[in-house]
Amino acid sequence: MVPLKMGMVGGGLDALVGAWHRRAVAIDGGIELVAGALASTRERALAASIAWNLPRAYASWEHMLEQEVGRPAQERIDFVTVATPNHLHYPVAKAFIDAGFNVVCDKPMTRTLEEAKSLASLVAKVGAVFALTHNYTGYPLVKQARYMVAAGELGELIKVIVEYNQGWLLEALERDGHKGASWRVDPARSGQGGAMGDIGTHAENLMRYITGLEIDALCADLGRRHGRVLDDDGSVLLRLRGGARGVLTASQVLSGEGNALRIRVYGTRGSLAWDQEHPETLIFSRNSGPSQIYRRGEAYLCAAAKRGTRLPPGHPEAFNEAFANIYANACDTMRARKERRAPTELELDFPTAEDGVRGLAFIAAAVASDGSQAKWTPMKDYLN
Amino acid sequence: MVPLKMGMVGGGLDALVGAWHRRAVAIDGGIELVAGALASTRERALAASIAWNLPRAYASWEHMLEQEVGRPAQERIDFVTVATPNHLHYPVAKAFIDAGFNVVCDKPMTRTLEEAKSLASLVAKVGAVFALTHNYTGYPLVKQARYMVAAGELGELIKVIVEYNQGWLLEALERDGHKGASWRVDPARSGQGGAMGDIGTHAENLMRYITGLEIDALCADLGRRHGRVLDDDGSVLLRLRGGARGVLTASQVLSGEGNALRIRVYGTRGSLAWDQEHPETLIFSRNSGPSQIYRRGEAYLCAAAKRGTRLPPGHPEAFNEAFANIYANACDTMRARKERRAPTELELDFPTAEDGVRGLAFIAAAVASDGSQAKWTPMKDYLN
Amino acid sequence: MVPLKMGMVGGGLDALVGAWHRRAVAIDGGIELVAGALASTRERALAASIAWNLPRAYASWEHMLEQEVGRPAQERIDFVTVATPNHLHYPVAKAFIDAGFNVVCDKPMTRTLEEAKSLASLVAKVGAVFALTHNYTGYPLVKQARYMVAAGELGELIKVIVEYNQGWLLEALERDGHKGASWRVDPARSGQGGAMGDIGTHAENLMRYITGLEIDALCADLGRRHGRVLDDDGSVLLRLRGGARGVLTASQVLSGEGNALRIRVYGTRGSLAWDQEHPETLIFSRNSGPSQIYRRGEAYLCAAAKRGTRLPPGHPEAFNEAFANIYANACDTMRARKERRAPTELELDFPTAEDGVRGLAFIAAAVASDGSQAKWTPMKDYLN
Amino acid sequence: MVPLKMGMVGGGLDALVGAWHRRAVAIDGGIELVAGALASTRERALAASIAWNLPRAYASWEHMLEQEVGRPAQERIDFVTVATPNHLHYPVAKAFIDAGFNVVCDKPMTRTLEEAKSLASLVAKVGAVFALTHNYTGYPLVKQARYMVAAGELGELIKVIVEYNQGWLLEALERDGHKGASWRVDPARSGQGGAMGDIGTHAENLMRYITGLEIDALCADLGRRHGRVLDDDGSVLLRLRGGARGVLTASQVLSGEGNALRIRVYGTRGSLAWDQEHPETLIFSRNSGPSQIYRRGEAYLCAAAKRGTRLPPGHPEAFNEAFANIYANACDTMRARKERRAPTELELDFPTAEDGVRGLAFIAAAVASDGSQAKWTPMKDYLN
Repeated sequence: MVPLKMGMVGGGLDALVGAWHRRAVAIDGGIELVAGALASTRERALAASIAWNLPRAYASWEHMLEQEVGRPAQERIDFVTVATPNHLHYPVAKAFIDAGFNVVCDKPMTRTLEEAKSLASLVAKVGAVFALTHNYTGYPLVKQARYMVAAGELGELIKVIVEYNQGWLLEALERDGHKGASWRVDPARSGQGGAMGDIGTHAENLMRYITGLEIDALCADLGRRHGRVLDDDGSVLLRLRGGARGVLTASQVLSGEGNALRIRVYGTRGSLAWDQEHPETLIFSRNSGPSQIYRRGEAYLCAAAKRGTRLPPGHPEAFNEAFANIYANACDTMRARKERRAPTELELDFPTAEDGVRGLAFIAAAVASDGSQAKWTPMKDYLN
Repeated sequence: MVPLKMGMVGGGLDALVGAWHRRAVAIDGGIELVAGALASTRERALAASIAWNLPRAYASWEHMLEQEVGRPAQERIDFVTVATPNHLHYPVAKAFIDAGFNVVCDKPMTRTLEEAKSLASLVAKVGAVFALTHNYTGYPLVKQARYMVAAGELGELIKVIVEYNQGWLLEALERDGHKGASWRVDPARSGQGGAMGDIGTHAENLMRYITGLEIDALCADLGRRHGRVLDDDGSVLLRLRGGARGVLTASQVLSGEGNALRIRVYGTRGSLAWDQEHPETLIFSRNSGPSQIYRRGEAYLCAAAKRGTRLPPGHPEAFNEAFANIYANACDTMRARKERRAPTELELDFPTAEDGVRGLAFIAAAVASDGSQAKWTPMKDYLN
Repeated sequence: MVPLKMGMVGGGLDALVGAWHRRAVAIDGGIELVAGALASTRERALAASIAWNLPRAYASWEHMLEQEVGRPAQERIDFVTVATPNHLHYPVAKAFIDAGFNVVCDKPMTRTLEEAKSLASLVAKVGAVFALTHNYTGYPLVKQARYMVAAGELGELIKVIVEYNQGWLLEALERDGHKGASWRVDPARSGQGGAMGDIGTHAENLMRYITGLEIDALCADLGRRHGRVLDDDGSVLLRLRGGARGVLTASQVLSGEGNALRIRVYGTRGSLAWDQEHPETLIFSRNSGPSQIYRRGEAYLCAAAKRGTRLPPGHPEAFNEAFANIYANACDTMRARKERRAPTELELDFPTAEDGVRGLAFIAAAVASDGSQAKWTPMKDYLN
Repeated sequence: MVPLKMGMVGGGLDALVGAWHRRAVAIDGGIELVAGALASTRERALAASIAWNLPRAYASWEHMLEQEVGRPAQERIDFVTVATPNHLHYPVAKAFIDAGFNVVCDKPMTRTLEEAKSLASLVAKVGAVFALTHNYTGYPLVKQARYMVAAGELGELIKVIVEYNQGWLLEALERDGHKGASWRVDPARSGQGGAMGDIGTHAENLMRYITGLEIDALCADLGRRHGRVLDDDGSVLLRLRGGARGVLTASQVLSGEGNALRIRVYGTRGSLAWDQEHPETLIFSRNSGPSQIYRRGEAYLCAAAKRGTRLPPGHPEAFNEAFANIYANACDTMRARKERRAPTELELDFPTAEDGVRGLAFIAAAVASDGSQAKWTPMKDYLN
């Protein structure tokens, strides 16, 4: 396996998500985290780098970029992970891509739809590898679901119900200085979407990944507690390409919910149900005959599901492994580029800048719909 | 226990629901089914009465009414159960109430909202006991959920997600002469609502029973397969009195679903989840501390939940017992009337004609919303 | 349906089980409870008969027998249900069978193995219909499990794990005069077995019903709390005919357990798992391919499972319906006798006096094993 | 965090378990795998080292030991992980401990009980850190269960039911040269125990870890398919110190089972249930009141459970993280030693050589019991 060198912007110290990235790359090996600008101030950035034993500690991402560009090719980082609050995704990712680096970027991809479109154009133009961490599509049984839909095992799709329910913002944590809460409720750092941006985009992406269906129009009702400017709860009716209908809910104020991302897909021949909190099984029901319990690690699964598997059935894998699968495929694609060969379809199975554009368009449309008296807000107004 | 005499209109032979009523009254005893006009033609009505060993078999409900009125008071039926297709609920119920009988009536209460309002006025005027078979509110843990909401254990309510998913109308069974399918897809017999009327009203009623919240406005998207005139799938956003939001889905075309009526209620202090297909447990989550599994039959439950219980925990009760609980309370209320005493609050715990009006208003509003370009359809337009 | 007349001995007033029998016969109709000697004293027996509105109330079972024998054939009861504490099963059942009646009898069939053998001989000799209420074999998916084993879908059986766990005797309820606890811990009324007799025999019967395997030898370890003479907890290793092994546990002192009768059957080709507290599904796993969820009410089930079904899938059935299925088949067999035709195999699907003998032999062997220093206690010592 | 240097013996190439160790140390960082003798032949060992990019590749563990001893202290490995088939655990571990290294060793600890006792004595004598990878005790909710038992929340313990069911040896994979199957069925490499050694010891360890109870005596019935010398299926009755009873089953021939390690612990005040295939919840039932669902990551958990947690609730952790927790505590204990301070109780929470002795004694007693006509085989014959 060609080793890759990784840098990270953001994610240090008390940012939960930095450790997630670090673990995701550690699981499989072959990726070395060598450089970082891990926090927004010089002091915190350097403190974080020491805590992580980073070989190359930078006080700012601009400095990191400048220095890495100047290094000999074999020392230079292959890619940078952008794990900052949302508003910095765009400038950081843009600068590194402009300088010839690959990028792994947290979602939502940018703060605004315009930035997202601009970034996607840039990625397409320069041919960088750009992976967006819609990590839930890394679960093997999500890949199996996508495979079964594509193979026609559900027939024509009729309805999709996707929900992403959390409870951690039920109280106004931002008033107590909770860091993750503070930037998430702040439009200057998060963008237009609150729960819709933070987790609704995961739900939208999961739905689209599994079903292949685009949203044609939507109708959103968003709630805001504690005088928040951004939504913390939302329900959205979906009209999907080809005639299927959907319901998407995303909330961060539902007492008792941890991280309940669940999807059910119904077609003319069968249906699928998957739950992120119990990710090792996928239920497949058909119009007749008993329902079936698909289990990770089994020989009957599709190639993409098998590729994203490390342990035998019954030895449960979970969140970290799914996250690692995003990295594994993105990095194999980077390796293919380094080896000057075309990446395989299995290697290319990770969320891209195009997914990022869809996510920002979804946020924009949902927020617009929430403020509108019209029932349906067409997505095409946001995608063209 | 004062024995009661029961008559039935409809429900005979191949009508599934007649047997449900029969079992529901048999479970506890104290109710004697003595008379019936069990089908829509003379021949079928009499054949059904023979099959059921009915003492007094009538060829039509009109004849039954005439004859029963003429009997001495101690022989006469105390109440009639109306188990016909929807369009007959109104004329049959009205005629029996006018003649001084009590009525147990299947839902939706009538074919039109106007009929519903008229019937409710009549019931109120004459003081009859009128029970609507929203049978799912008969489950003991549904009663416990209602009790806990009313007791403030969830705090102020924020969101309700209620779904009622079936799959049996995925294929066009009505084309093969399937009786239950045929009248349900026919507006002349069903009224305005398809799935919304048949099961959406159950979802609406369950939501209102548990939370006590009225719908202020709704936004519906309804689907129709196989060229059906009536909806067979629908999703509805809800704005609830007091500021809570909701999502209600009801569908009869979802492959693999049996009778999946599920509700989740979220408040500022905790949440509840209940699933009709696993009715013996109720999950209560709080903002802190472990979630709790409430179990039917336990000493810690509220009086209404205990009253509706016949077996110890672990000896599962299910659909028939919940249905029987509707009868048990309605009949105890009838007994109270016979004994010229005021029924207790526990006895009065059954769905009423007022619930029927709400159900028809919900159908009317959902169908209107589906056809409207406006986002929100206010319920008050239908309730006043 | 030929109507049958039923009498009951025991089960009145505060005896839980009497109401279970009453409900079980009421669910399907066609059986009329006309006579009873419902308690052990004259006063209580008559009080219970009044509470139940019994047409023919008797102060003792001896009087009931004498009187019923003297009635004209068309008025006389067709069968008697014996719902007394265990020690009365034998004299009551014997007397009624001697007098030409059919019998439905609670389990364990008698107080001693000798009584059981004697009763089974009598039943065989006179050709009475005798049904033992191992009611858990009445569940449709238990019948499906039996069918699948017999059809070879599991291959050769390797292992059976059956458990029946309750918690209600954890405290010494008998010291507070709890009626059900008092006779169950008393060898004079219960016989040799405590938990092994009360629920262990259910587990043994369920195992044998599904697998068709007899126990060749067993090794039991029984516990007794609160100075009880009879076991209230036990674990038993099983050697089964044909080489399969098993583990049977039965306990009434396990905190938190309601009525947890569960069985898993493993063969060379597949396995089955069923849980009485969630009786509507049966999990079938095969050596390869996804596990399957069998669901009550579906078209793919065997004839015996379909016959024991009253509601469509998703409208849950439970304990009462399973109990009713024992009665339904036993009574259809009685009807066949009255009609002088041979009962069908489906009608003959109910537990018999032979099952009762196995149950008593199991109790005797388990208690002997518990007191023995030898590892294996052969069942043949008890069955010949 | 003081970085540690790690070596590994065995585990390379197609050995599943080597990758498990590698991932377990990678998750948290702070441990550098620098040296290895990864397979049993020179060629395979070196090939594996290349595949893993190991800085110091050795052709044999003897060579590795010799070379590492000769290095300067700051370069030398801090500990060696022994991931070979069972028969090599003893010589390898002994040699490295003798040379002053710490050891992480797979279970069962040795091939024979005598070796186990000898190794434990050596560990005690030289004061090495020795961690045995009973990895299932690394799950946070297992630690919570142990805490709750110790805190008396279950009262006095009455019964323990622990099972470890797999299905992968149902077919005779060893005949097809399956590597993992081949050494596991071979007494020369595995020792006396088959399933009892491979997974039964995990069950025994989990039971003892949670309850703190030693086995006083046991009664085992072991099965062997395909002419195997070693058991592949077993059921064991347990008499536990203090009067509690238990049942332990371990099998590798149960169709459909993945890695079903489950435990239920019952006491006079409450009970606990945990399932390794769904490790994120722990069910706590009490004699009265609703059962409770404990969830990993919550604030209400004990310190040991919190310490072994990396992700918030709902972001599932699983097998790899539990394995990592064994390393985390063992390595923190090594760090404490390097820092010349006493390790804390939380750091010392990992399985030790004493656990290894219990495991081998359990295997020996179970095999002896299986061959004995006596009911009970006392453990003290094996522990003194």
